[in-house]
Amino acid sequence: MFNTWENIRKNAPLIHHITNYVTVNDVANITLACGASPVMADDAAEAAEITKLATGLCLNIGTLNGRTIPAMLSAARQAKELNHPVVLDPVGAGATKLRTQTALDILQTGSVTCVRGNISEIKTLIHGTGNTKGVDAAAVDSVTEENLASSCAFAKQAAQQLNTIVAITGAIDLVADTKNCYIIRHPEMSRITGTGCQCSALVASCIAANATKPLEAAAVAVMAMGLAGEIAHKHLLPHEGNATYRNRIIDTICHLTAEELNKGAKYEIC
Amino acid sequence: MFNTWENIRKNAPLIHHITNYVTVNDVANITLACGASPVMADDAAEAAEITKLATGLCLNIGTLNGRTIPAMLSAARQAKELNHPVVLDPVGAGATKLRTQTALDILQTGSVTCVRGNISEIKTLIHGTGNTKGVDAAAVDSVTEENLASSCAFAKQAAQQLNTIVAITGAIDLVADTKNCYIIRHPEMSRITGTGCQCSALVASCIAANATKPLEAAAVAVMAMGLAGEIAHKHLLPHEGNATYRNRIIDTICHLTAEELNKGAKYEIC
Amino acid sequence: MFNTWENIRKNAPLIHHITNYVTVNDVANITLACGASPVMADDAAEAAEITKLATGLCLNIGTLNGRTIPAMLSAARQAKELNHPVVLDPVGAGATKLRTQTALDILQTGSVTCVRGNISEIKTLIHGTGNTKGVDAAAVDSVTEENLASSCAFAKQAAQQLNTIVAITGAIDLVADTKNCYIIRHPEMSRITGTGCQCSALVASCIAANATKPLEAAAVAVMAMGLAGEIAHKHLLPHEGNATYRNRIIDTICHLTAEELNKGAKYEIC
Repeated sequence: MFNTWENIRKNAPLIHHITNYVTVNDVANITLACGASPVMADDAAEAAEITKLATGLCLNIGTLNGRTIPAMLSAARQAKELNHPVVLDPVGAGATKLRTQTALDILQTGSVTCVRGNISEIKTLIHGTGNTKGVDAAAVDSVTEENLASSCAFAKQAAQQLNTIVAITGAIDLVADTKNCYIIRHPEMSRITGTGCQCSALVASCIAANATKPLEAAAVAVMAMGLAGEIAHKHLLPHEGNATYRNRIIDTICHLTAEELNKGAKYEIC
Repeated sequence: MFNTWENIRKNAPLIHHITNYVTVNDVANITLACGASPVMADDAAEAAEITKLATGLCLNIGTLNGRTIPAMLSAARQAKELNHPVVLDPVGAGATKLRTQTALDILQTGSVTCVRGNISEIKTLIHGTGNTKGVDAAAVDSVTEENLASSCAFAKQAAQQLNTIVAITGAIDLVADTKNCYIIRHPEMSRITGTGCQCSALVASCIAANATKPLEAAAVAVMAMGLAGEIAHKHLLPHEGNATYRNRIIDTICHLTAEELNKGAKYEIC
Repeated sequence: MFNTWENIRKNAPLIHHITNYVTVNDVANITLACGASPVMADDAAEAAEITKLATGLCLNIGTLNGRTIPAMLSAARQAKELNHPVVLDPVGAGATKLRTQTALDILQTGSVTCVRGNISEIKTLIHGTGNTKGVDAAAVDSVTEENLASSCAFAKQAAQQLNTIVAITGAIDLVADTKNCYIIRHPEMSRITGTGCQCSALVASCIAANATKPLEAAAVAVMAMGLAGEIAHKHLLPHEGNATYRNRIIDTICHLTAEELNKGAKYEIC
């Protein structure tokens, strides 16, 4: 399974990102770190043309606006036409009508291969409303050891309903299609801006490099993010905090091998 | 007084930032570092809705444009209606008509709790014109030991005229309402992008967590920024420069305690 | 020649950047690191006014859009009127019609002093079409030891045709006017986001501080970037990767002296 990780470096896919300006630099750097290449272009006048040049598309609605929404839809339609994999990160879906509606509109194009979000965002896409608070998941929604069976069932059902792979990240990560759900455990990475966005970039890179195995690819990308968070944390000095931690995670992805992933990833399938 | 700092971690306020894209990542990370949560949303179609979800609003006009100005005004009006604290960072007021006018328009909403800027920007808001050069204060305007009494008087007068708390940062920081002015000394932090923007984010976080004591909260946030600059500087290796320094400041905020602030902050009140 | 480098710190020019949001923070920090001052403003309502305040203009089309293109043209025209140096970074020219056309439109203003791009981007500007793939140069276009003579001839011809200095960066860098071409060798810096953008910022800063010697200034800036990449690489620990490397390059620029440049830069003129 972990050769999917090596395939990113081997195939070096070009990933078209239409993403938020908060974490865009981290997203570009982690895309390079894993072996893919980023290109950012968010104006409708060129979005589809860039999508054509790329192998994969990553749409992140973190700072969506009236100018970038049409660009996202145009890129999504172009990707569908070319059968390119598309990852949607529905940042803050449930927080505002604009976010919920835009995420649904992108899903409606039928182009999305994988949705990567927190549990509140995914619940919003399924139930229409959610407990999203800002860009964080609500505690009441959390995936825990106690509700793991029903959470896995929910992930599979969401995959069915959205007709995509669903990657729900949090204290425990779930990556599911309609039949299988990867359960991935790792120390929690909170209080860093953009680990979700970066995870979506890894998922897009890994799926683009492994077009025939999207579920495995998405699961491996999520495992890589979790393991990188764990390894990076060990390198932190006592006076270092979230700014350095962010860099260390990208640095770790830069060096992470399939062998390390194979040894370090903690997952089961249900 | 320094329990205001602890209250950020205790209350973990969600801060809505409409800010510039130059320092937005640093702003997000320092907001997390101090114990608050950031959410960025700058389109008028959702700005007020996000403001409603948040506890505080931080408006920074560093890269203002025709799309984000209406979003800022809409968010400011919503915050006023809900009595949420609002921090305005009038980046470059005085440099262009658009910046000066936008800062004044935001102040005109009557929502602003605290204006955090350099001395040239604040002088522009008071006198209509200033010596702003790019985004830096003009040397001629600087607060110095020599002009400290008149600078404090100016800060209090500005607080009166703007009907807000005024935080003027530079070589010496002044944080004033109409009656009291905190004078805060610290080694100068120049040549790093966005320490002003980050300071505004800390002020917004601290005021949002201490709604009944906005002057103390603003002063403590400014002290925290200054002390973090001092501590972070000690951790720099000889070959490290402004890029690492920037990360070290955020790292330091991540670990900074009320006790350290109490010991390290150098201030007087006049 | 290397006093051009010292002149940046001596003259501390204010550089107006209209640039992409991916690398904008790095661009701001490297501008500060070399001794210049950055100001970002990308709305047509204020762009020309900011250009007037600044000493140099740096236009980067990395995430161009319908709002920023008019701002770039307005700033370029203002700079021409004031005879301020202008650097154009035609990111992704050749990848989309919008990028190629915008780069040509900016050149058409007659304001551009220096174009800094990769070889595919420059070929696009000369031949109308190119092999640009995303934002990276195509391997087929690369400047190598084998094609060095013809590459130098191309650089000079491009300088003639565009009526600007041309800085082509890659595994080997070429900086040319119509008569002379600097050939600059350094270890390759790939897999970091935005070294090209940062290089353009250095070129703009160095030319703005040395208005009468733009070719030398551009060449020295390109040498500084290459040498910084080399020095920074030596400071990397085994577990550090592209995120830390990026910071180390800016840190290195922060400390780089004319003397070190004089010793370390590997160049010839043809």
